[in-house]
Amino acid sequence: MTTLGDLAQLVGGRISVDSKLKITGVSEIQSGISGTITFLTNPKYRKYLTSTQASAVIVSKEEKVKYIATIRVENPLLAFAKILEHFSEKLPFDTGIHSTALIGNGVKLGDNVAIGANSIIEDNVEIGINTRIGAQSFVGQNSVIGKDTELKAFVTLYHNCILGNNVLIHSGAVVGSDGFGFVTDKNIHHKIHQLGRVVVENDVEIGANSTIDRGTIGDTIIGEGSKIDNLVHIAHNVILGKGCLVTAQVGFSGSAKIGDYVSIGGQAGVRDHVEVGSHAQLAARTGVTKSIPGDKMYAGMPAKEIHEKNKIDVLMARLPKLMDRIKELESKVAELKSKK
Amino acid sequence: MTTLGDLAQLVGGRISVDSKLKITGVSEIQSGISGTITFLTNPKYRKYLTSTQASAVIVSKEEKVKYIATIRVENPLLAFAKILEHFSEKLPFDTGIHSTALIGNGVKLGDNVAIGANSIIEDNVEIGINTRIGAQSFVGQNSVIGKDTELKAFVTLYHNCILGNNVLIHSGAVVGSDGFGFVTDKNIHHKIHQLGRVVVENDVEIGANSTIDRGTIGDTIIGEGSKIDNLVHIAHNVILGKGCLVTAQVGFSGSAKIGDYVSIGGQAGVRDHVEVGSHAQLAARTGVTKSIPGDKMYAGMPAKEIHEKNKIDVLMARLPKLMDRIKELESKVAELKSKK
Amino acid sequence: MTTLGDLAQLVGGRISVDSKLKITGVSEIQSGISGTITFLTNPKYRKYLTSTQASAVIVSKEEKVKYIATIRVENPLLAFAKILEHFSEKLPFDTGIHSTALIGNGVKLGDNVAIGANSIIEDNVEIGINTRIGAQSFVGQNSVIGKDTELKAFVTLYHNCILGNNVLIHSGAVVGSDGFGFVTDKNIHHKIHQLGRVVVENDVEIGANSTIDRGTIGDTIIGEGSKIDNLVHIAHNVILGKGCLVTAQVGFSGSAKIGDYVSIGGQAGVRDHVEVGSHAQLAARTGVTKSIPGDKMYAGMPAKEIHEKNKIDVLMARLPKLMDRIKELESKVAELKSKK
Repeated sequence: MTTLGDLAQLVGGRISVDSKLKITGVSEIQSGISGTITFLTNPKYRKYLTSTQASAVIVSKEEKVKYIATIRVENPLLAFAKILEHFSEKLPFDTGIHSTALIGNGVKLGDNVAIGANSIIEDNVEIGINTRIGAQSFVGQNSVIGKDTELKAFVTLYHNCILGNNVLIHSGAVVGSDGFGFVTDKNIHHKIHQLGRVVVENDVEIGANSTIDRGTIGDTIIGEGSKIDNLVHIAHNVILGKGCLVTAQVGFSGSAKIGDYVSIGGQAGVRDHVEVGSHAQLAARTGVTKSIPGDKMYAGMPAKEIHEKNKIDVLMARLPKLMDRIKELESKVAELKSKK
Repeated sequence: MTTLGDLAQLVGGRISVDSKLKITGVSEIQSGISGTITFLTNPKYRKYLTSTQASAVIVSKEEKVKYIATIRVENPLLAFAKILEHFSEKLPFDTGIHSTALIGNGVKLGDNVAIGANSIIEDNVEIGINTRIGAQSFVGQNSVIGKDTELKAFVTLYHNCILGNNVLIHSGAVVGSDGFGFVTDKNIHHKIHQLGRVVVENDVEIGANSTIDRGTIGDTIIGEGSKIDNLVHIAHNVILGKGCLVTAQVGFSGSAKIGDYVSIGGQAGVRDHVEVGSHAQLAARTGVTKSIPGDKMYAGMPAKEIHEKNKIDVLMARLPKLMDRIKELESKVAELKSKK
Repeated sequence: MTTLGDLAQLVGGRISVDSKLKITGVSEIQSGISGTITFLTNPKYRKYLTSTQASAVIVSKEEKVKYIATIRVENPLLAFAKILEHFSEKLPFDTGIHSTALIGNGVKLGDNVAIGANSIIEDNVEIGINTRIGAQSFVGQNSVIGKDTELKAFVTLYHNCILGNNVLIHSGAVVGSDGFGFVTDKNIHHKIHQLGRVVVENDVEIGANSTIDRGTIGDTIIGEGSKIDNLVHIAHNVILGKGCLVTAQVGFSGSAKIGDYVSIGGQAGVRDHVEVGSHAQLAARTGVTKSIPGDKMYAGMPAKEIHEKNKIDVLMARLPKLMDRIKELESKVAELKSKK
């Protein structure tokens, strides 16, 4: 049984009322459920503070609140993330190696590794302690996986790849497929064999059905702490820096080099061999066609700084009126000329 | 053996000739095959009416046709869909539970459920009558699947999700993966655990390799009768209304709310937390960046009503000429000023 | 042990020095490793010719090189592709049929076919000599696969489809899923059953998690020698010509017809029922909304010839200045009129 006091302690917050209040779970503020705790970070939802049926709310230190128990913290969303983790269902996971898993020769497994049903671990793979390989997954030969990492069901990791510690990969993701490399001679596209690896550093998350190709000679690298959403494509020899956020359906072409802490909106794309500087922010569907410096926000294709892009968008919407003004100018000028 | 009369009866149509004519299958009008039936709905293909080798054609009540047997109906495409179903090969499907399928504890299976080879059904799953789970599929614990539903090979359904009746999911689709939620503190992206569900209502179809993330607290909902094409991304807490048509490679960001009977062209995208009204139509690659009312057609990014977008496209293509007109105006005005 | 002389012979090149020089592998010119061979094709990398630690370099016949052993050839990239193949690790592949593979009735297997662990080959499938089916793959009934073809792990091939010789399909790709076809009557979307096939001709490569839908009545066709990258969507009844290069996340709508040797940049899209002429080149994210002739380069949406598109992009970026010029014209004209 969890009390409000337990949760306040968990998140390092200050409580307004009886610390013995029982909290049974979490709910959203607009559809709050009695007995649960909710949170407020988006001002749009402030109106629900007085009407929510939730029994407690996590708020910032400055928020004015009446009629409901509070936990006050510096960063309510961070506190709420911890509380969500507290209440997240601990699904029973089969420990050990399922009887239907196929384990190759020379495989080294750390303590407490779990391998799901029908998974295939090829020869000479190494897997670190506490790592969990989901059902139906495939790990190609010689690949090395760190500790505390989790592959969900149906993950494909090709041969010779490296995954760090505390990596999470969702179903359907493919890591290590061939880069798209061909040399065309007399109308025939000859395959350029892809001998490099994919190296995924620690604390990376990779979304469902995303694909990361292996390098041609060198490696494709996903930097520490980067988070990748669903259906993202990362081509051969891309270097993605540390702490990047890449939302769904983004594509990176071959050898693109992305700095650290770059954040990229959905359906954006980056051309081959260009660089994006650290701390750059790309709006959804930005198309990066040449190298751009960091610490700025971009939008549009070709990518422009976002304030320029917004200005152009406004003018484009005014093009019909602009055309009218030009016609009027032309008729006035014609009149002036005729009157000379 | 099927006759033209049988087919006319099936679709409620009126025949022009001998109802005993044998029909062995279907063909396209431009490459019609003797003995088969074809159809005409697109006026572009009317020219093939006289030359097709097909033995019969389904047409509207008004269509003028000579030299070929007809079935006349109100809606030729609807009639043809029924005839395609009639001729669709009934593939032998292993009934019952394949000996290699792994069924967890507490699983409840309705009558006539079929589960394919190497599939994994985790603990406490419920599956309704007549539902077929394809080979190599994975159903996570506590998920509930209705009746008359079909998962093709290689479908992944995470834990705690709900699929309605008469749902069809194609290979490689992932339903219930984690939403892309992080809270950043001191350059570290902390995971926001995703405790909600995906609820797929009745009569939904989901295409190959599409991904639908579970809600953070509440649910991600796919409304009754909606049809989703391949490689579509649906983020956490999206609510897709009833009867929507979503074509390939579309992406919905978190908490986007789509009304009923919305139709969305390929590669379109909808921003997080915005609403699209019912019966809206979005052209291919529309980018919805703020809420838009229903019952209208949109295009472009940011989304505009399609007639505005088309006008702007025309003017953009004329920008080089516009520039010439401005230069000419400038020189005329300079001349006028000098002559004063 | 490979010598420089062996490699020169392999690629038909002329060597500058001792043919007995031992070469142990390949490296990139900018991070060259002693004992390996590298190559130069991109002039950007010419500066590394003098500093690379590699022991030999493949260059064109005209390239001026000092201080490093060379192999001179007509086409350095083509030569390098052959050398990469020479050094590509021959992964031990289990020959024969893995004991966990499930083989249906009436399956015909050529000599030397290999079928990986947990794969499912349904009834009446035919597989040609030397073809390798990866682990966890699924081949639906009646499908026919040629010789020297390879399916990686987790490939899904639906029933009744055809793959040619020397085809390579990466993990997660789905071939033969239903086309997205519905006929709407009284707000209900009735499924149009998809009875056609997918026909993949010889020498095609299909990337990870790409999807190719079967035709409605006729076939979806992927022409000989075409190469398809990751996360590409190909709808029902598309005809892709011979020798096309389709990069990642491109989408083709139903019945689009693409000529031969068309090259298509990432995230581009082609509308349903339109044609793209042979040898056309589409820049990344081109949107083809009506038929376009071949032998030209296109960009933008709607697609324009690339030089027009570039001109318009430049003018769009100048719209703010253009607006200033119009305002100035207006004030000058007003002044002129007032002075009359």
